[in-house]
Parts: sequence; C-alpha cells; structure tokens
Amino acid sequence: MTQAKAYAAVSATSGLAPTTIERRDPGAHDVEIAIDFCGLCHSDVHTIRAEWGGTTYPLVPGHEIVGKISRIGADVAGFSVGDTVGVGCMVDSCRECDSCLEGFEQYCEKGNTGTYGVADRRNGGGITQGGYSSSIVVDENYVLNVPAGLDPAGVAPLLCAGITTYSPLRYLDVQEGDSVGVVGLGGLGHMGVKIAKALGATVTVFTTSPAKADAAVSLGADHVVVSSDPAQMHAAKHTLNAILDTVAAVHDINPYLGTLARDGALIQLGLPPADMPPVRPGLLIRKRLAYGGSLIGGIAETQEMLDFCAEHGIVSDIEMVTADGLDQAYDRMVAGDVKYRFVLDNSTL
Amino acid sequence: MTQAKAYAAVSATSGLAPTTIERRDPGAHDVEIAIDFCGLCHSDVHTIRAEWGGTTYPLVPGHEIVGKISRIGADVAGFSVGDTVGVGCMVDSCRECDSCLEGFEQYCEKGNTGTYGVADRRNGGGITQGGYSSSIVVDENYVLNVPAGLDPAGVAPLLCAGITTYSPLRYLDVQEGDSVGVVGLGGLGHMGVKIAKALGATVTVFTTSPAKADAAVSLGADHVVVSSDPAQMHAAKHTLNAILDTVAAVHDINPYLGTLARDGALIQLGLPPADMPPVRPGLLIRKRLAYGGSLIGGIAETQEMLDFCAEHGIVSDIEMVTADGLDQAYDRMVAGDVKYRFVLDNSTL
Repeated sequence: MTQAKAYAAVSATSGLAPTTIERRDPGAHDVEIAIDFCGLCHSDVHTIRAEWGGTTYPLVPGHEIVGKISRIGADVAGFSVGDTVGVGCMVDSCRECDSCLEGFEQYCEKGNTGTYGVADRRNGGGITQGGYSSSIVVDENYVLNVPAGLDPAGVAPLLCAGITTYSPLRYLDVQEGDSVGVVGLGGLGHMGVKIAKALGATVTVFTTSPAKADAAVSLGADHVVVSSDPAQMHAAKHTLNAILDTVAAVHDINPYLGTLARDGALIQLGLPPADMPPVRPGLLIRKRLAYGGSLIGGIAETQEMLDFCAEHGIVSDIEMVTADGLDQAYDRMVAGDVKYRFVLDNSTL
Repeated sequence: MTQAKAYAAVSATSGLAPTTIERRDPGAHDVEIAIDFCGLCHSDVHTIRAEWGGTTYPLVPGHEIVGKISRIGADVAGFSVGDTVGVGCMVDSCRECDSCLEGFEQYCEKGNTGTYGVADRRNGGGITQGGYSSSIVVDENYVLNVPAGLDPAGVAPLLCAGITTYSPLRYLDVQEGDSVGVVGLGGLGHMGVKIAKALGATVTVFTTSPAKADAAVSLGADHVVVSSDPAQMHAAKHTLNAILDTVAAVHDINPYLGTLARDGALIQLGLPPADMPPVRPGLLIRKRLAYGGSLIGGIAETQEMLDFCAEHGIVSDIEMVTADGLDQAYDRMVAGDVKYRFVLDNSTL
C-alpha cells in the first residue's frame, strides 16, 4: 500500500476536502500513475452531491485522468515507467461477456467497474476512488496511451467528454459531407463540435442563448440555430443526418427530431433527472428516424479517439482549477459558467 | 373515362355503400387493373371514420390491391395485359427528390401520392380513390408483379402489412441467428412473425392475451411472452436484437426496450392517436439502443418483398369478406376479431 493525497467528500453536503487514501501496490498487470491532471465532469457533481442516489462516502471523484507511470507490475507489456497515460470512466469490467470480448467494455453485461464509487471487483471489493488524487493504480488493459504533441491537461477531458461524443459519431459512421447537429454547448457539446468537424461533417449548434453563437463558430460550427426561434428551427427542418444531444436537463427532443433528414438519428448522451416529454412516433415513422443513446466508449475505441485527436490537433478547451477551488468550480459548472471544462491541477492537492 | 363499381363512404358515419366512380383511360405509362382482391387495412378504418382528420368524401378506401391488367398505355414497358399485379399504398410520388431517386418513394420529400384520399398530382388533382372498386389505373412505376405460385388473395395484404414489416427487418439487416420480437399479433404482427422467421431469426411474440400463445406458435413464433407477466418480461431481458412494435394504441414501450440486447432497436410501425408514455433515456444509453419508426417501403423494395415471400411460400392469413359485409368487417377489426386480415372479394361489388 502507498498513501496518496486526495480530495474527498464525506457527505452529499460536505463539499470536497483534503484527505489521504490508500492505493494498492501495482499487481503483476497494474500500472501506478502519478496523476498530473484530472478533468471535472458533471457526473462528479451529481455523484458527490448524491443527486443520482447511492453514493458511498467518503469518495474521491474524477474520471478524466492524465499522468505519468511511476511503477509497473512484473507482467505489464504495453507500458513503461515515465509514459504519459490516461484513465477514463472505467478501471475494470468482467472481461468475459460478449460486450467485453467485443471491445465494448462500457456495456459489460455484469457492469463495468467505474473509476470511482463502485466495488472494485478484482481488488478486494473496496470502493474505487478517482482522480482527484496524487496517484492511482489501474490494470494496464484499462489504461490509454496519451499521444505526444497534445497538451496533457487538455487531453484529460477527452477521456470522458471526448469519447462520449466520438463513439456515437463513429457508430453512426459520420463522415465527409454529413450534417451533424449538437444540442448544448458545454463540456460534451464543445467536444462534439470539434470531433464532428474533424470527421468532415458540417456542424450545426443548437443553443437557447444567442450569446453563444460566436463561441460556437469559433469552435468550428458552420451554423448556429437558436432553438427558441421557430423561424430558425423551421429553416433547419430535415437538414441533419445526426444530432448529439448533450443536454442532461429535461427537455423536449421533438423539435430537434424535426431537423433530421430521412434515416437520421438523435443520440442522447445526458441522463435527465426526470421524465422527458413524450417522443412523437409520427416524426420517427415519417422519416425513418432513430432516437438512441450512447455510453462513453470501449477501451480500444478510446485509444482510437486519442490518436484521432492527436492527428487533428484536438484537445478540450479548459480552465485550470486548484484543489482548494473545487467546490467553487462545481458551483460554476452547475451554473454553466465554464468554457468548457475545468481541469484540476493535481500538483495543488 | 370508364365507370368502375366501388364502395365508398360519404361521411365519417355513413359506412360504406355501393357507388360508381370514374377511372381515367390509361395514359402512355399507365396500366388499367381489373381488381380481384383488396385487403382491409386499419388505415382504411381510421380514414373512413375520419379518426385521423382531413378525410375528403366521398371516398373509396383500399391500398392492398391485387388484380389483372386489362389495358396498358402505349409506352408501358414492364407489363402486359393479363399479368397479375399489385398496387400498395402509393400510386405516385414527385420522382425528383433524393428519396424518390434512391428508391424510397414512401419518404418522398414532397409527399407520396397515397392510393386513396389525396390529390392526384399528375392526373388533374382529383382525390385518389382506392381498391374497393372494380378497377384502377396506375402508372406502371408504382405497380408490382405478383409472383406466380402465391394465392393472389393472400398476397393483397403483403402490399401494406407485408412491406411494413419487411422493410424495417431488412433495414436493420436481420438475419440468421438474430432474435426478433413482435409486439401485437394482428395484421402487421402476424406478417412480422412470418417474415422474420423466413429471414432466419428466432422470433418472440409479445402479447397481452395468453390465449394468443398457440396462434403465435402456429405462425412460427419460437417464444411467446405475456407482456403483463413481470416474470416472463424479466426472463426476456436483454435477449432481442430487434422489435417490431405493431400496436397503434397508446402503450408504454419501456418494458419492451428492456428486452433488447446491446445495439438493439425497437421500430414502431403503428401511429398512436395520442401521446405515448415518456421513453426512459437511461435504457437507450446503457445498451446503445434505438427507438425508431418505419413507413411501408419503396417500390423496388416492395417487389423484393413479394419475390422473397414467393421464395418462402409466405402469404397473409386471411378471411374473405363480401362487399356488403365491409361495415361489419370494420367493426370486427376494431375489436381485434380477425385472423389476421380481411380481404375483399371484389367480384361482390
């Protein structure tokens, strides 16, 4: 065991405070990572504030982790000490079900092992603790190579926000000439714009705030549609092949379905806290549309995404935060006041 | 012009009564069909009783038409007098939009010309009149060859119920080894079972009435799940690759979504008269599911379906009805009392 510095919450209302946690010594297939950066994801806020229920405290959140390997186990084949690596939303899965064997560990039929807050199935069953800490020990099969040439801090959010938008765009086979819509311009949305553009798509950002138009264009959006303006929505009717809906609040997807062309799909990435308005089946039937969902991505696909981002020079737009500013950063995230992702400087723990 | 015998409604409450309608003489690209049989579709009931609004009376319904060609235009290339042919839900479309040019005339971006009840765009704009009549004149591009060896009366429902289930199964690339669910065992559902089986799938029928289990099995279903039984629904969890939902009444699709395996899709084929219960996005996200819709099929695909049915010896299970029994047949359809499709014997008009 080693001791790691960390920030943890002890209750839904405690906020995050300094603490020390234990990390196992690397097993034969493990790598130990000295964490440099960890992105702040909305899931962290929901979990720490127990908004999704079932949080076990004390808990260290964080699943957008970038750092350098400090120790490796005897049988580690793919990594060396000193490598810059990443860890995303999973640190394990059953490795036996069809989904795991096909590289879709995120859909593991026994449930993947989340990077924080769940029982660590192969390591004694303790609760996994995340990346707001000075180190983490992870089986090498769940560790990603961070390509050289990308700012490591800007890479951190790729491990959740990046792969969550990349995976459905690839699943839908978005390519040159396609038109992609992005609903919501936060952490996920801004990554969706960058990745869809890099895939060759024409990108339309839907936003409720006209003030965000310039920001959307500077990220690469070709068109901005103010979704509260019926004339603008009407002009976009039946023009898009795919929509990434990154809004986790309750909202009506029917107007967005109306902007899809035949065979289009709207993929919901955020999980709203209550029932959404009913979907109108006639919209689906008359244009053979699909309303779907998607959950992060598999390990191999996450590596593919990182390599794709390196090829296209894509990282997240970030604002660095120090450990003593985490609670304030959470409040700003809830208020939508960040462009576009906070990243913790783990040297300040 | 020629005179054709027909049964028409003159109001939402009139029922159907004998009348005479005019049919145009065949133009250069038209065929005139002496109609032998016409299937009775639920759409006929909804339209004749103005349950979908906007019905123009008097109206002759019917879009599952089989008959023999009696006259052809000078430039007709694909058909000869005496051929047994079919006409389904469309008799025309714009022929210029991407959907038309790609063979998806049903999704014509200017709207396809329905076989009854809409303005006939290329023939003076009169209201199209359907197959409860002794003859019809249709452009040859919207006419299907009825393969020899199939009972022509049993073929009639293939032109709507058959293609409506065949098209999404092909779109989803259902094949040997896949598992397909069918919700509802009416006209569409029973065709869905037969076609999915012929494609090589294992078929599960969901029904609210345990009494339908034997009927489902005799149609070819491998499994029957009584959807009101939580234990049976639980046992079916995450087992299916595709579901055809043929129920047009308001119902909750979430329990059916729960029976889909990763990457599965539920395709809604019926249009409910009011809002459905909200879809739970978490179900979509956690298994990368899709909730979609589908509308009949294109002309080329309808021919492909007829040829497929000939190859596999598939026709609809039908009950013949005479013209003076149409109103009563409608009442029985509304009550779900038909196995599985009524077909009008047009010689009784």
